[in-house]
Amino acid sequence: MTNNIKVAFQGEPGAYSEAAALAYFGPNVETMPCESFQIVFEAVQNEQAECGIIAIENSLAGSIHQNYDLLLQHQLYIVGEHFLRVKHCLITLPGVEMNNVRKVISHPQALAQCAQYLRSLAGVSSQVGYDTAGSVKMVKEGGDRSLAAIASRRAAEVYEMNILQEGIEDNPANYTRFLIIDRKPVFPSDDAKTSVVFSTKNIPGALFKALSVFALRDIDLTKIESRPLIGKPWEYMFYIDCLGSTTERRVTRALEHLGEYATTLRVLGSYMRQIRISDE
Amino acid sequence: MTNNIKVAFQGEPGAYSEAAALAYFGPNVETMPCESFQIVFEAVQNEQAECGIIAIENSLAGSIHQNYDLLLQHQLYIVGEHFLRVKHCLITLPGVEMNNVRKVISHPQALAQCAQYLRSLAGVSSQVGYDTAGSVKMVKEGGDRSLAAIASRRAAEVYEMNILQEGIEDNPANYTRFLIIDRKPVFPSDDAKTSVVFSTKNIPGALFKALSVFALRDIDLTKIESRPLIGKPWEYMFYIDCLGSTTERRVTRALEHLGEYATTLRVLGSYMRQIRISDE
Repeated sequence: MTNNIKVAFQGEPGAYSEAAALAYFGPNVETMPCESFQIVFEAVQNEQAECGIIAIENSLAGSIHQNYDLLLQHQLYIVGEHFLRVKHCLITLPGVEMNNVRKVISHPQALAQCAQYLRSLAGVSSQVGYDTAGSVKMVKEGGDRSLAAIASRRAAEVYEMNILQEGIEDNPANYTRFLIIDRKPVFPSDDAKTSVVFSTKNIPGALFKALSVFALRDIDLTKIESRPLIGKPWEYMFYIDCLGSTTERRVTRALEHLGEYATTLRVLGSYMRQIRISDE
Repeated sequence: MTNNIKVAFQGEPGAYSEAAALAYFGPNVETMPCESFQIVFEAVQNEQAECGIIAIENSLAGSIHQNYDLLLQHQLYIVGEHFLRVKHCLITLPGVEMNNVRKVISHPQALAQCAQYLRSLAGVSSQVGYDTAGSVKMVKEGGDRSLAAIASRRAAEVYEMNILQEGIEDNPANYTRFLIIDRKPVFPSDDAKTSVVFSTKNIPGALFKALSVFALRDIDLTKIESRPLIGKPWEYMFYIDCLGSTTERRVTRALEHLGEYATTLRVLGSYMRQIRISDE
């Protein structure tokens, strides 16, 4: 993987997306914080960044449909994926000890994911902040030694803060899958995954036929998800990830065959499959 | 539908979940605010409430996997569903006009869903609050006439506040599907939906066979979603909603047939299907 490229991500410096970019591209990558996912897509399309990294699904919160919508609205390709374990840390000013902490601040979702842990800290209240990394920045700038933030290890490093405790999330089975998006597709030959979005006129006949194009060619699916099309009862959009690359004849044949049943079909890209979940 | 029952929901009074409960059960229902979804399930299980209402998927944000987990962890049944359009309102103290507003407060997701609208208001900043209804409460208690909150029409009513503008969300295709959960199942005969969660050893053979049990009996699917089982590569959990009730022979035969391929299978309930999306 190249190191000297610029990667757009959604969030503040120290966000989990930035940690994912560093884990995927290596420590020398240049990261570009963006206010929204929309801006990440625009940054890649307008060549302000070589590529972008976007969260696409979380093991507890599900798929992020908005990012599928953005994929369909832009002419970009998925060129990679990365699984990052969401490992929350309790972060304070340097030198602060556990018994100094009176209040914990973070994004509401991070607070919720550490609810049991927070209840176990007697006499400690919690406060909602804008995002995880931004809460660390706030603790640093405020200089309050009774305040702690919940964020990634990366956020503690970015703001040169102290990690009091790591892995404080209640459910350790908390990971996020990120996609790498680029202006040009890649063509991996081995160990690849291909992502497709398609719609069918109705179910069940159409979906069953659509899946048969993969099953008849012994192509493994790693994801299938239906999403109703609003205002169009009985029309659905499907997200499918299958194993294999568009460089393989059986995959291109399956997708051609799928085109016979689908009312719309978009191949989002083939890319190297990742199996390992990274701990940052 | 009975009116005098107590329904547990997650959130503050005036939350979208409470609006969904009122739309589903009628204006005389007694609603019980709960801090978390876990507490909603416990309230129903421990008979503190007759039933509960939980968000299960949003058209922009996707399925809420945590609530599927809670469904599997509790012996409760789905007895109904409700689709609620998420229609954000700009809410202020009575008598405040648009040109008085300098700052808007709400849950980060609500602010994000109104980002374009907020940008169109020159000189107005936004601030993150704990939740939508809680932000209205805060505006009311603070008495600040330059502050507005984003929340549901219901929240404005609960706190006797003024709706300056309604439907300010950028994407009107924003709706949430809620499930009604109860200690006892119901057995609808017509126009029903049945929700099932199952797992298979591997894909594609197994999934294709699993879907064939519905396709071979001409049973329509309205939802299919795979979810990887963490720490068990190649094992998946599937969420399926099909049309029909367990009072129908072809549905029970299909589920028995599904049991031949599934490693685990749980029927979450049959319930009256809702087609219309309610505007509150």
